Amino acid sequence: MLKGQMVIGQSGGPTAVINQSLVGAILAARECEEVTGVLGAKHGIAGIMNEDFIDLTTQSIEQLEDVANTPAAALGSVRLKPGQEECEKVFEVFKKNNVRFFFYIGGNDSAETAHIIAEMAKQENYDFCTVHIPKTIDNDLRVTDHCPGFASAARFVALAFMGDDRDNAALSGVKINVVMGRDAGFLTAASALAKQGDDCGPHLIYVPERAFSVERFQYDVKAVVQKYGRCVVAVSEGITDEHGAPVMTSGERDSHGNLQLSGTGALGDFLSGKVKEAYGDEAVRVRADTFGYLQRSFPSVVSKVDAKEARMVGDFAVRHAVNHGIPGSVAIKRLSSMPYDSECFITPLSTVAREATSLDDRYINADGNGVTEAWLAYVKPLVGDLPKIGILS
Amino acid sequence: MLKGQMVIGQSGGPTAVINQSLVGAILAARECEEVTGVLGAKHGIAGIMNEDFIDLTTQSIEQLEDVANTPAAALGSVRLKPGQEECEKVFEVFKKNNVRFFFYIGGNDSAETAHIIAEMAKQENYDFCTVHIPKTIDNDLRVTDHCPGFASAARFVALAFMGDDRDNAALSGVKINVVMGRDAGFLTAASALAKQGDDCGPHLIYVPERAFSVERFQYDVKAVVQKYGRCVVAVSEGITDEHGAPVMTSGERDSHGNLQLSGTGALGDFLSGKVKEAYGDEAVRVRADTFGYLQRSFPSVVSKVDAKEARMVGDFAVRHAVNHGIPGSVAIKRLSSMPYDSECFITPLSTVAREATSLDDRYINADGNGVTEAWLAYVKPLVGDLPKIGILS
Repeated sequence: MLKGQMVIGQSGGPTAVINQSLVGAILAARECEEVTGVLGAKHGIAGIMNEDFIDLTTQSIEQLEDVANTPAAALGSVRLKPGQEECEKVFEVFKKNNVRFFFYIGGNDSAETAHIIAEMAKQENYDFCTVHIPKTIDNDLRVTDHCPGFASAARFVALAFMGDDRDNAALSGVKINVVMGRDAGFLTAASALAKQGDDCGPHLIYVPERAFSVERFQYDVKAVVQKYGRCVVAVSEGITDEHGAPVMTSGERDSHGNLQLSGTGALGDFLSGKVKEAYGDEAVRVRADTFGYLQRSFPSVVSKVDAKEARMVGDFAVRHAVNHGIPGSVAIKRLSSMPYDSECFITPLSTVAREATSLDDRYINADGNGVTEAWLAYVKPLVGDLPKIGILS
Repeated sequence: MLKGQMVIGQSGGPTAVINQSLVGAILAARECEEVTGVLGAKHGIAGIMNEDFIDLTTQSIEQLEDVANTPAAALGSVRLKPGQEECEKVFEVFKKNNVRFFFYIGGNDSAETAHIIAEMAKQENYDFCTVHIPKTIDNDLRVTDHCPGFASAARFVALAFMGDDRDNAALSGVKINVVMGRDAGFLTAASALAKQGDDCGPHLIYVPERAFSVERFQYDVKAVVQKYGRCVVAVSEGITDEHGAPVMTSGERDSHGNLQLSGTGALGDFLSGKVKEAYGDEAVRVRADTFGYLQRSFPSVVSKVDAKEARMVGDFAVRHAVNHGIPGSVAIKRLSSMPYDSECFITPLSTVAREATSLDDRYINADGNGVTEAWLAYVKPLVGDLPKIGILS
């Protein structure tokens, strides 16, 4: 049985419930006598290398519950993808501090970091267990049914479209909303939950899993306007053309080498221009919004299932590590959709690390401009009940 | 005593609670025997001219309550500022249908429309009463303490900044958020409610009431980063330079001749560039978001005071018109801030029509980059309690 200190860190883009996972892990660790100390790494791997730790055994339950209900990473996050050298430094710090448990809350990049460190421990015969705790609003981790963090972001997107569709119905025109999701369309597809009636938007949904054609987009928009006198469009920030080139980017890259697509209106403005072009001299009201960071950090719009599961995966990770000592990534298995029920299981780090997944074909409609009933059946229980739209008739 | 049909319409940019005012008016009208019919005008003045009405006496209370809780204008809105000819047409329709009461829910432009029609009735000795029901997220109507619609938008902005500040604390850098408010900084100033600790953002707040200097902005941001290692900025979409020229616009105008500033990342991108410029070769993470239409139409983030008062002004307008027959605009008087209490009164249409107001000098700090305690005392009771931010220490 392993016995020693534990380190926990948070990595990548924050979510509304990532602190639920942190608190779930802290509270579980406090109950385990095998865990002799609970160290929070400030800004993930960066904090470990600098031994910038915070003692997580002293906070009151009340304080921890406040943290759990606060969006974004309470320990600070990091976008560092460590190489061999950095991982060696991390491992040195672990050995020096008798760290026997390491929990890293993050996406596939964080799973890869955990994987490298786990392999290193094995090679050195250092008794050690590292468990990756999943989090990502993108919902693009393999193996798991879905990722903690996604459902709350999806709830924000669904509510945003619900209100914005009413706004568009009040002042008709074409409205384009750019949603986060570089390579996976899960979050953009969640906008479909806003639709409570046949004529409600979003009327068109474009995800990165399908090549985007400007001509087809123009045709689609005109057809919807013809039918309903207006059109609300959901589009992923990461849509690409038939050659895989981004339709529009701001050109910047983050430290993972990913193109930075959020935080700018470039894609929305570009698509607005294309709609106006399609109408030529005909007057048409076109507006675009880029939802940006609000999608991942908005307080008070949290899915109950998401908050509960985020807590659950943190708790499960610690108990698994302490009881079994086998490295892995926590995944969620859906037991039932109605009523919704789920449980955790462990999957090898290699099955989650590095490569991500994307929206399954069966969730995208044949025209590539909307979602299917199967998608709604998948996502609805995660996001939870939404307010009822009242319409005058 | 006036007796006849009533017409009600909604105008201008929607809000999260404009339908509360509509339902307040409908329910009051149903109780008044002087009101022989309740006609909802589709898309405001445009619907009246085309006699495009919906009978508002048939809906169930349940349906109306659903409508009241749904953002944006359930009757449809319009941005038409009618001239003399259009107003004559409206008046014709009113006479033809024995309309004796007219209620127009909107901002200062709508008050002006109501004013012109009221004057027309007086000249023609047509017994008629028109009452303007205030609504605007901009909070820029004269006379009233504040405007229905503002507090819910302010709540959205405060929550957005609260989460985004935690996001920025997790992944440090400079974050610029562009908030709605073409000429008035009320909504941008509401971002200050997000600040629950000295080091919390927004650290800088720029409103259109103060000339914006790019150099001063660069200086301010660097000073905050120096102190806290990061910086969250709130900036109104309508900031102008010392000559009154917009710092950055998309160049488009709506039918009121207003520059269209929302729905594009132009200002945020411009300011991001200026921050990077200030840092020269030094690496700095800079991001910008433009909150856009979500601010005015997001469901489920509604201020309780706002919802209640929006209902109240609709109810008051009808009872005033029926009981007194004197045209005017409904205004809100704050009776107490702690505990919060308010009541309605009527102010002449001319005191609200046309000209708008802006953020009082005493609400803006001496440096022109933040707000005062007086502002927080004014806005806090309107927005209501906000979630508590939990911080690890």
